[in-house]
Amino acid sequence: MEDHWFTESCEEGGSALSLRIKAKLHEEHTGFQKIEIYETTHFGRLMVIDGFIMLSSRDNFIYHEMLAHPTLYTHPLPKRVAIIGGGDCGTLREVLRHPEVSQVTQVDIDERVTRISEIHFPELCVSNKDPRVEFLFTDGFEWIKNLPAGALDVIIVDSTDPIGPGEVLFSRDFYTACERALAHGGLMVQQSESPLLHMDILQNMHRGMKKGGFSHLKTLFFPVCVYPSGWWSATMARKGVPIDNFRQGNVENSPVQTRYYNSAIHQGAFSTPTFFPEQLNLEES
Amino acid sequence: MEDHWFTESCEEGGSALSLRIKAKLHEEHTGFQKIEIYETTHFGRLMVIDGFIMLSSRDNFIYHEMLAHPTLYTHPLPKRVAIIGGGDCGTLREVLRHPEVSQVTQVDIDERVTRISEIHFPELCVSNKDPRVEFLFTDGFEWIKNLPAGALDVIIVDSTDPIGPGEVLFSRDFYTACERALAHGGLMVQQSESPLLHMDILQNMHRGMKKGGFSHLKTLFFPVCVYPSGWWSATMARKGVPIDNFRQGNVENSPVQTRYYNSAIHQGAFSTPTFFPEQLNLEES
Repeated sequence: MEDHWFTESCEEGGSALSLRIKAKLHEEHTGFQKIEIYETTHFGRLMVIDGFIMLSSRDNFIYHEMLAHPTLYTHPLPKRVAIIGGGDCGTLREVLRHPEVSQVTQVDIDERVTRISEIHFPELCVSNKDPRVEFLFTDGFEWIKNLPAGALDVIIVDSTDPIGPGEVLFSRDFYTACERALAHGGLMVQQSESPLLHMDILQNMHRGMKKGGFSHLKTLFFPVCVYPSGWWSATMARKGVPIDNFRQGNVENSPVQTRYYNSAIHQGAFSTPTFFPEQLNLEES
Repeated sequence: MEDHWFTESCEEGGSALSLRIKAKLHEEHTGFQKIEIYETTHFGRLMVIDGFIMLSSRDNFIYHEMLAHPTLYTHPLPKRVAIIGGGDCGTLREVLRHPEVSQVTQVDIDERVTRISEIHFPELCVSNKDPRVEFLFTDGFEWIKNLPAGALDVIIVDSTDPIGPGEVLFSRDFYTACERALAHGGLMVQQSESPLLHMDILQNMHRGMKKGGFSHLKTLFFPVCVYPSGWWSATMARKGVPIDNFRQGNVENSPVQTRYYNSAIHQGAFSTPTFFPEQLNLEES
């Protein structure tokens, strides 16, 4: 077999990650973006959008569990959930493991991501027929703006990087709309890039969420081996209530089978490297 | 400027990391190994040994702090410390920040690593003239074997991967010698590779340390962005005493300036992904 690799270059990091591939399984220009699917030698299947790795079969469990469970277990009773982006359905699968959740609306602008994931990542799509789910293939920002105030308990923003279709999801206006759509005590969480490479994006997100009206923010840290630097973050924002405890007993007695997340990981993920608040504050002063 | 990259391929991961370089500053065959130094565009300087990235200026603080501080703050009074490997002197610098430490012996088989680090990573070598330090350039395993029993409080194994000169440092005989060299309650800590890619090495290390006589083990997790998968671990082993608390007050009141490590990170680093004990036990049953 020849030696083939898929390589993603990270301009802002001066770095590149390559994964050895066996075959390209699919390539498609959807009108919104270019989607590629590869079979790798060691990371299972790989989804790439506009040249950026979205997920691999091997390590996506960490990202999807960390985007869903810390936030859902922080909310006392998360019934109404929205996922903005998330078309691969991995986050959705984790959300649907929570029996308290009565309704999930997943809003991804590009239906093809979901259709392709159903074919190439069927394990992420096992819950797509759950009657609690509604799929909307439209603009997530517009959808959020038109919701009644207080309509949601949790908003999960599982988007691409802040370039292309995902850019608006990193804007102050989007955070204002999310804050309005959440009930008191409601939470949003958004993937917030690499703490080593993207402190500028993290600073903008923290500033935008505060200006959008969120009174309490916390960033959590976890590995994502196929993203630049291998070290990733998500930022949680809450309306009117501190983020200072979680339903620890429910986590520890849960029948949900997780591979990364657990009660200790929940607490550990919030432990903050010394440089992080220093660099956040630098920009604000 | 032309587009030059240094690339490290990870065979067992089917992955490769590339860093963009401005210049190769040094290359030398030392008799033990080949050392290269590059100037990168975004990661500062890079040390490469036998084709494997050892450290970058940009992110080495995480690795060196996590190899030194969790273990030194777990020991109630770490006076006598040995570093096996560690020739770049980054771990040594962190160890010497502890006023309780009265004596550090650093044993690296290859003097050239230290001499090259003094030139290209002078910031890691600022404490090399500290009167508490003794440098030995010899075989670390032989040195440990010939110590009087109970001579050390802490052993830090800051070695290369378990191939080449570093291989013996992953053997049961080495752990037996370390256990003998430590006083009751003494600790060893060793870098233990990627939890995603190297569970086989972690299993062997846990088994070897137990067979070597260590009664208590714990693995800690942290990012190392320039190592395969970006997610790394170190395993701590203690002689006769559980690893269940640390000098938290000393950490919180320390004048030591750290960039990653702090009291919350200490506790968070021990939070264990759900799959980790499952995969460790699989191999043992």
